[in-house]
Amino acid sequence: MYEDMIELYELAGADPDLRFSPYCWRIRMALAHKGVSARYIPWHFGDKRLPGGHGRVPVLVDDGEVIADSTAIALHLEEKYADGPSLFGDVTSVAHARFIISWTDAVLHPVVFPMIGADILKVVKPGAQAYYRETREKRLGTTLEQAASAVDETLPAARAAMTPLRDVVAAAAFLGGDEPSYADYAAFGAFQWARIVSPTELLEPDDPVYAWRERMLELFDGYAAEAPTAN
Amino acid sequence: MYEDMIELYELAGADPDLRFSPYCWRIRMALAHKGVSARYIPWHFGDKRLPGGHGRVPVLVDDGEVIADSTAIALHLEEKYADGPSLFGDVTSVAHARFIISWTDAVLHPVVFPMIGADILKVVKPGAQAYYRETREKRLGTTLEQAASAVDETLPAARAAMTPLRDVVAAAAFLGGDEPSYADYAAFGAFQWARIVSPTELLEPDDPVYAWRERMLELFDGYAAEAPTAN
Repeated sequence: MYEDMIELYELAGADPDLRFSPYCWRIRMALAHKGVSARYIPWHFGDKRLPGGHGRVPVLVDDGEVIADSTAIALHLEEKYADGPSLFGDVTSVAHARFIISWTDAVLHPVVFPMIGADILKVVKPGAQAYYRETREKRLGTTLEQAASAVDETLPAARAAMTPLRDVVAAAAFLGGDEPSYADYAAFGAFQWARIVSPTELLEPDDPVYAWRERMLELFDGYAAEAPTAN
Repeated sequence: MYEDMIELYELAGADPDLRFSPYCWRIRMALAHKGVSARYIPWHFGDKRLPGGHGRVPVLVDDGEVIADSTAIALHLEEKYADGPSLFGDVTSVAHARFIISWTDAVLHPVVFPMIGADILKVVKPGAQAYYRETREKRLGTTLEQAASAVDETLPAARAAMTPLRDVVAAAAFLGGDEPSYADYAAFGAFQWARIVSPTELLEPDDPVYAWRERMLELFDGYAAEAPTAN
């Protein structure tokens, strides 16, 4: 349903089937959670064609309304498609979910990115690679390749940084408790990002986060598991 | 109400009016949230007199039932005093709150403690100081005094680590949204801990976390603001 009304502009690789942005994955999962279909429109670093003049994906166009920023899009979906399963639960959950979202942005992504940044370069379309390298190396303070080569140090630190996520999913199936919630999708985006672009295994099989990631991959008839990957 | 039925064993300083444990403060605030009175029983590091054979505070004794662990106590209060204001909201909120609690334990406390550990030593009763120093210095990997002297490095790092908290309370009054929730109390415990024992100011006045801490201090007619401090 709705497929003619809703467009999601999302990051794509040189292979347009590679949709690896963690933020776009949040919205893919959120749309699936709501049972809402959409047209997924590929966008590449440096492209200028986003509706509403926005500079970053995801951008949602819903029946003519343009919404940017993944959290804003999720809240829009929660309100507009209120008949579908809730993404957030009650008002307390919304505020708490914002915490987990911020943690994902400020902690999880920065520890994952150095390990996969060079792999992302390989899937970015050639015309965007110079832009990608320049902006990401400025952020890293080193080259993509040097950052990737430090995996023996960064991987243990990344796993340690996952402690709050680990503690919750060791005790419950999801960050949402018995049912997945938007906070799950926010955190999962980081793992799906890595999984799609990189052969680096972020998790050990006995890690509760690994089992949670498996549960996330199996949601919606294996929707995320079936996404194309670079490897 | 209930004051004859409920006892909370909590950490005290050499000055028994100094109750600085962040975990015990979670429960103090949770009891206040529920409007439930209790007898507060001081306990010191190394004391052996906790009900149920437990080795750490807080321990709650509610009409003969012994509950240890601050999260378990909070969930007990939520269930038993369900007529009072909810601490968690719905089931999604409970799971999300666990994330914020784990973040407080795994991230916030470890960045705050090195700055205040030497101040805590000053308020611990003399007979417990050797135990306190030995256990805490083993954890720190250095002396309490050396850890405290590194504040110029550790304070900026601590403030940076507060990003998820900051992001939420910059946009909403509390981690619970418009109303305080148990997650607020979990995080606030760390600040109350520091505030009670240490002159070190963790926050700059223009930090949204500072304003949030002020709101927390003003809750329940300034309950936390009026707690005795060492300075």
